[in-house]
Order: sequence, then C-alpha cells, then structure tokens
Amino acid sequence: MLRVSFQELLSTLTRVLVNVGFEPERATLCARLFTETTCDGVYTHGLNRFPRFIKTIKNGIVDVHARPEMIASNGIIERWNGKLSVGNLNAFQCMGRAISLAKTQGIGVVALAETNHWMRGGSYGWQAADAGMIGICWTNTLPNLPPWGGIDPRLGNNPLVIAVPRPNGHVVLDMSTSQFSYGAMELRQLHGELLPVEGGFDTEGKLTRDPVAILESKRPLPIGYWKGSGLSLMLDLLAAILSGGLATCQIGEDADRETRLSQIFIAIDPAGAGHDGLSAQIADSAIAYLKSSAPVGDEQIRYPGEKVLQTRLENMEQGIPVEPAIWEQVKAWAIKV
Amino acid sequence: MLRVSFQELLSTLTRVLVNVGFEPERATLCARLFTETTCDGVYTHGLNRFPRFIKTIKNGIVDVHARPEMIASNGIIERWNGKLSVGNLNAFQCMGRAISLAKTQGIGVVALAETNHWMRGGSYGWQAADAGMIGICWTNTLPNLPPWGGIDPRLGNNPLVIAVPRPNGHVVLDMSTSQFSYGAMELRQLHGELLPVEGGFDTEGKLTRDPVAILESKRPLPIGYWKGSGLSLMLDLLAAILSGGLATCQIGEDADRETRLSQIFIAIDPAGAGHDGLSAQIADSAIAYLKSSAPVGDEQIRYPGEKVLQTRLENMEQGIPVEPAIWEQVKAWAIKV
Repeated sequence: MLRVSFQELLSTLTRVLVNVGFEPERATLCARLFTETTCDGVYTHGLNRFPRFIKTIKNGIVDVHARPEMIASNGIIERWNGKLSVGNLNAFQCMGRAISLAKTQGIGVVALAETNHWMRGGSYGWQAADAGMIGICWTNTLPNLPPWGGIDPRLGNNPLVIAVPRPNGHVVLDMSTSQFSYGAMELRQLHGELLPVEGGFDTEGKLTRDPVAILESKRPLPIGYWKGSGLSLMLDLLAAILSGGLATCQIGEDADRETRLSQIFIAIDPAGAGHDGLSAQIADSAIAYLKSSAPVGDEQIRYPGEKVLQTRLENMEQGIPVEPAIWEQVKAWAIKV
Repeated sequence: MLRVSFQELLSTLTRVLVNVGFEPERATLCARLFTETTCDGVYTHGLNRFPRFIKTIKNGIVDVHARPEMIASNGIIERWNGKLSVGNLNAFQCMGRAISLAKTQGIGVVALAETNHWMRGGSYGWQAADAGMIGICWTNTLPNLPPWGGIDPRLGNNPLVIAVPRPNGHVVLDMSTSQFSYGAMELRQLHGELLPVEGGFDTEGKLTRDPVAILESKRPLPIGYWKGSGLSLMLDLLAAILSGGLATCQIGEDADRETRLSQIFIAIDPAGAGHDGLSAQIADSAIAYLKSSAPVGDEQIRYPGEKVLQTRLENMEQGIPVEPAIWEQVKAWAIKV
C-alpha cells in the first residue's frame, strides 16, 4: 500500500488548487479539508474524489473566485447565498458562522443556498466539536434515491451529521439516508466485494448485496425502508425552505453537473442552557454503557466517530494510504503551471 | 368493527382522567391528545395504551398534580424540569413554549428533563405545523434497542418527529429509530401477522420477520443497522446534555417503570429568515415530484403524514375503531367515582 505523509498530501493538493486559480489561503484550507478527510479514512470523499472536484472547476460548476454572501438574518438564523463557490469552503465558513452565533447566543443556524457539494459532511461536525460546540448539519443532493414504493429517484441521499464534543474523542455521526453512499458502493465495486447487508434493488426489483447491480438499477435502499425515505424528504424540505434555495426536485439528475444545493448548519453551545461540564460526563457514561453490551461474535461495538479517530491517529503515524494512479495524476497537476 | 365518535371517546377519556385526579382542564387536554392519536390511526399509542397510562398514575410513576417548571433560559434555549408530571401534557406545553419563542425570534428550543412517556410523538409535530411552524422533537427512552454489534439493549428506540406546515396537509414524519416500535410489533403479534420486512433478531441471532421472536429476544433492529444505532445515541446525548436530564444509560430497564425521560422541542418559523410563502410551494413541488416516480407494483408512494390525514378524515366521518375489550374497561372507569 502506498502511503504519503499528511504534509505531503496537503502541500500537493494546495499546489494543484493554486494552479487551477485558487487564492493561496483558500487553496490551503480547501486542501486541508481534502487531506483531513483522506487521513480520517473517508477515502471516497478525500483524495479519490479530488479529480472529480477539479473537473467541476474546469467545467464551470464551481466558481473558485466567488464568495458566499449573507442575504438575511434575524440574529439567530442567517440565510446565505453560496454563489456557487467551492462547496467545502462554503460549508466550513457557514459552520464557522453558526459557531460564532452559538458562542454569543447559545445557538446559531445558518441556511445556505446555491452552494456546491460539500465533500465529507463529517468535516463540519468535527469542526463544531473541535470548537466545543454541538454541531448539526445536513445537505440535500440531486435525486439519487427512489422514495419507498417507487422506482425512479425522487429523493436525495441527503447526508446528516450530528456531533457532540468530548475530551476523550468527539462523538460524530456522519450518515447518508441511503443504506450505502454512492462512494461506498463504488469502492466495493472497485474491490469486487459484496455489501455487508442488502443495499438496494437490482434491475429486476430484488433486494441485493451486489453494488454493481444497484449502481446499474439506480435503486439504492433508504435506511429503514420507508423511514429513511421520509427522513430524506424532511431534510430536503428544511434545507430548501430555510435557505430559500432549491429542493432536490429542482436539481437536475446529471451527477456530473450537480449544483445549487441547499444546506443547514446548526451549532449549539452545550454549556449554553445554564449548566456546564455535564456534556462530557454524559457522553462518557453513554459510551461506557454502549460498550458494556455483550458483543455479537467478534463484532466491536463502536460509537460514531470512534473508527475515524483511530484511523486518523494510525494514518498520521504511518502515512495516509493513497490510490497510486490517482496520486500520480494529482502530483502531475501540482507541477504543471 | 366497533367504532365510536370522536366526541364520545373524548368525553369518556376525560371522565376517567377526572376520576383519577386530573383537574378538569388538564383532563380535557390529555384526553384530547389520546383521542386525536386514536383518530389519526396510531392505535398503539392512543386508546390501546390508555390502560397502561392509567396504571402509571396509580403506581406513582406519573404525578397528575405536578407542573413543569422552567429552570434556565438564555432567551432562545430554555431548560425545563417536567417534575414527573403527565408526559403528553408536559410535551404539549413545551412544544407550545417553543412555538411562542419562534414567533418572536424565529426559533425556539425547549429541553425538557424529568418527564414521562409522551405517548405519540407526532402529536407535537402536528401541533407545531398547525401553528404554522416547522416542528422538530425527539425523546429518549429506556434501553430497549441493542447497539449495532451488540446483544443487550443499550440504546433507546428514541422517536424523532419532523413536521413542515403545508396548507394542503402538513408533512409530518414520526419515526422511532428501531425498524418497528414495540407497539407496532405487539399489534402484529396480536393479529398473528409477520412484519413486512426483517425487524430484528431471534434468540439465535438470525434476522426475522416474526414479531414474537423479536419481543422474546429483545433485539429489534435499528433502522439502517449501524446508522440507526448511531442516530439513536446522538438523539439521546443531545436530549440529556441540553436538558441536563438523564440519558438512556441512566434510565432503568423496567418498561413498567420507565420515567425521568429527556426530550427536545424545537420550533422554527419558516417565514422567519426573511422570505415568506415559499414553504408551502416547496413542499407542494417536492411531494408532486415524489409521486411522479413509477410505483413498485401496486405500492402507493406517500409523503410522511399523508396516511394519518386520510385516516383522520375517515375516522371523523365513520367513527374511530376501538378494541371492544379495552373500550368496555375504559367506559367502566369513566362511571366509577
């Protein structure tokens, strides 16, 4: 396995971004978000997705020079227009804004319209938790998930992120509302593996663990069948209504041109409601209790975010695993001016 | 099928509640919430649960004379102590409070500790939507759901409610984070039916559609396997941290003595962020798009809340179906002084 250091991945990606027109500071932050995502083991949304991200800059989906703008505010809820700028930079800025609001008022809500794919949603959960805040965020997507009872994609797989800060390791849930993200299915396809549980329907309408069959039918399964289908719709409605932006039904089905997304960023100060220090205690107790369950066979009972943190520490020490072909391509872009 | 009118069910339940010590106004509201739940077709949490609710009053779990009290407030987030009063009345009051806050500030958050089972969570979603507000609420529960990878229950099936107001019928999601609520499994058990999809493990650790086997093993399945397991933990942490109340790990496993729950109630004014009238338009478009998907066989593609509204209208016209044995028992309690 080819591994590169955090610093090498970061500086290489930064140079590529400068080469495609980013201002240096924004290049560094955008590259850092990609590098952290890769280092955390979310390879599908890190380096592996970087070439596709560069393509969206070259084909004009992402405007690297645009800046998000606040459209309206009531002091607690703010509405921002992302101006179709860089998705992860927009998201980082909006969660940062929500954190600032929460610092003075206990809670901040930023609703962002007209933005681009945020890459790994978990990044903004970790960002909030690192600032000592509870973070909640979600995005809508293009229609890529059939509603329960239907065949054609009419919902997004709308990832939802919930983060609780904890000195012994933040608790960070980062989940799409489909059983497997497209990235996860593509990775299994690449490695010729089956999914661990049924992840969708094949073209004949049978439930299957074969990622190739699901990618062909475009019928992934919502988590919990009708429940994930309903949850996905609600997240979309909230994002579009609060941001004044587009809902999934208004976003085209072409995955290469997915844009104009709507997102919500919420930060809450866990000490804001008049009691302090409880947050870490409660999280520690809940996790200890979780782990006291008898395990199924050799399964390990993990809390959300636990594996990410393990992988991060491993990769910081041993280097970050990269796909050789993608790494070579990205290095070439870094040289070219 | 035995059917009774909304008015008859309401007045009968009200009389029972007065007989067990409720003040008349609170008896009427509590009875109305039970009656609406039954009328809406959520029979498991309506009349069918009423005898169990009465038992919790008689055994001292629920204190009908107590009143919830505000403990702390920063003007947007309020912390309340439910004083172990009536669960549905506490929840109704707290969602009402969140709505009031949202009316003046765009958003209101009420975190409630030391409360009792709220019966149907959807009630407070409909309450918010009827007031023109987006409503989000959830509760923790006793440990009744094993974490993913574990055998013993260490999580609650923590129901989550999200409601979006809409003139043509509110969109209201009301879901537990287990694939089937205990009420839903007990109802299938009563009718000798299998679950429509796998709902948990039997005592030998095999996935099964048999509700009897799952009720015996106490191993229902979280929605989306590891995802619902993670979501359940996050909802519990948020409820306990923000309310300063108990987390699932601190609530005993005895279902008959389930109490001291923590709950969150959020209301958001959809017109509060500086744009109005969009909410209904977006919801209408998203629902029309959802329904434009080719159906699987004879399946009907429904939005969350659609069936509830249909059932409500039917039951208002034809009378509300009741289980004869339960109805007779409740009528007897209504007479007895």
